[in-house]
Amino acid sequence: MSGLTTKELLERFRVGDRRACAQIISFVENGAPEATLLLDELYPMMGRAYRIGVTGPPGAGKSTLVEKLAMECRRQGKKVGIVAVDPSSPFSGGAVLGDRVRMSSLFTDPEVYIRSMATRGSLGGLAGRTKEVCDILDAFGKDFIIVETVGVGQMELDIAEAADSTVVVLVPESGDAIQTLKAGLMEIGEVYCVNKSDREGADRMVMEIGTMLEMRAKNDGWMPPVVKTVATTGKGVEELFNKILAHRRYLEESNRLSERRRKVIRNEIERIIEERLREVFYHQPGVRKRLEEMVSDVEQRKVSPYQVADMLWKMYFGNEQRRV
Amino acid sequence: MSGLTTKELLERFRVGDRRACAQIISFVENGAPEATLLLDELYPMMGRAYRIGVTGPPGAGKSTLVEKLAMECRRQGKKVGIVAVDPSSPFSGGAVLGDRVRMSSLFTDPEVYIRSMATRGSLGGLAGRTKEVCDILDAFGKDFIIVETVGVGQMELDIAEAADSTVVVLVPESGDAIQTLKAGLMEIGEVYCVNKSDREGADRMVMEIGTMLEMRAKNDGWMPPVVKTVATTGKGVEELFNKILAHRRYLEESNRLSERRRKVIRNEIERIIEERLREVFYHQPGVRKRLEEMVSDVEQRKVSPYQVADMLWKMYFGNEQRRV
Repeated sequence: MSGLTTKELLERFRVGDRRACAQIISFVENGAPEATLLLDELYPMMGRAYRIGVTGPPGAGKSTLVEKLAMECRRQGKKVGIVAVDPSSPFSGGAVLGDRVRMSSLFTDPEVYIRSMATRGSLGGLAGRTKEVCDILDAFGKDFIIVETVGVGQMELDIAEAADSTVVVLVPESGDAIQTLKAGLMEIGEVYCVNKSDREGADRMVMEIGTMLEMRAKNDGWMPPVVKTVATTGKGVEELFNKILAHRRYLEESNRLSERRRKVIRNEIERIIEERLREVFYHQPGVRKRLEEMVSDVEQRKVSPYQVADMLWKMYFGNEQRRV
Repeated sequence: MSGLTTKELLERFRVGDRRACAQIISFVENGAPEATLLLDELYPMMGRAYRIGVTGPPGAGKSTLVEKLAMECRRQGKKVGIVAVDPSSPFSGGAVLGDRVRMSSLFTDPEVYIRSMATRGSLGGLAGRTKEVCDILDAFGKDFIIVETVGVGQMELDIAEAADSTVVVLVPESGDAIQTLKAGLMEIGEVYCVNKSDREGADRMVMEIGTMLEMRAKNDGWMPPVVKTVATTGKGVEELFNKILAHRRYLEESNRLSERRRKVIRNEIERIIEERLREVFYHQPGVRKRLEEMVSDVEQRKVSPYQVADMLWKMYFGNEQRRV
């Protein structure tokens, strides 16, 4: 694949060549020089896929649930992309369940595309790259794209923001339920799922989530449903998928889908501009070296970081704050 | 307090007035105009406190452990600051244990300063503000500053980077241990703590952590110890604190403490410059309005976000990439 011109690569992508898709994703993941051009070319083909984020604490069974959700999509004749950002996901080759999941029919289905993101050592910018990988799968013709993440950090919030519907997966014994819920997960879910619901305490968990949701300040006309599933047997998965589709209808009918996607676009433009501003600033000759010298001054408490920023700024841009 | 001039506020801070300290922290938290000046003035007084980050999954008993660590510091005659970034922490008024912890002697001890960070709704920039609150407590004369966070997102990594020693707290039943450990926690710990170690499975957990640590690529001469604690009774807390002190000695003797702090300074200067670049760009007259119009063009797939960024850039800076 690497011997192809950008034009040839795009041609193959457009006729559904999976290796071309993989190559383009790799370019984007690695920040290759051709990445921007490729994304620009694919841009007119994007915007059709519906994006589902699946998040929750480690051990909640997210990967198995994603697998079963993808199968439900396929059963309804839809094409699916799966993007695993969770480093412990079997889709990432990570966890103990890996072999079982990797033997599932999904891996040989030509209408399913599975991609795991390299998270190790490169957390910065991961949310942006995850969104771009979803964009590519969108352009590749997938109807649904499911993104699996773990936890509730800033990265997960960014990824949740780029999803159309966010599913939060919990289990009956999710540690101290109240603590788990307060840890940010209660803010981002649009559909809640109590997985492993054949275990003791599932109904209590459903009730607790319901109570927390009622207290949730945000009230935009959508009350997040709580669905019980047993991902390993597939129980409840169809209902979960239907609730996601209900949320989709709600977003479309209330015009909120467009609103959300405009917000995502705005964030993306701002991110690109910020990257460029940074690049241009640090490309000024000598600025890196000067900064390094000043780090020592700060360490010795001769100046503060703010004073250093001021000095560097004046050195390269003078006093004109407006004209940069 | 609000009627004071900046100078008066600083004078009171310097003689140990807790209300002045609280006021300055609030200014910094809210991004008040006087924040930068205050931080600059306090800068020469910083750099003496040792910073301990405590992180781990919800329900691991971090808050109780932080409480007992702080008491151990006090027993050794050291002054302590506690900063809770975990929204479920009882220090934040969050969780079920709140009342018990709030009744502890820490809350009436004049040499202990406890501050919780407002995390709700304002996750962006939280890591930066957390560091600045620690800076203020450092200038206020604390010997140790303990920061409690939850999870393993980008924010926690940023906070861990600003800590001198990071303690990762787990429990025997931490979900599927392997999954939990892979979720980033194995990268950031310098001291590991198996809390609630009177429960079944504690020794197995200690062993598993040991195995994972041996596989950890990073080898800089420090092998993270694993300590068993029962925070509710205080068992093992003294040993945990001693391991933290051992890590401190290691950092000081290998000159790595200075290296780390230089890195923190570098990051901070870069963050300040980035903020200013952003500010200056969006202050250009008309740029916000133009961006908003272009969001619609992108939504209709007439242009891509990269093309919009290009257009905005040229509109305000021309084609000179080097001179901004």
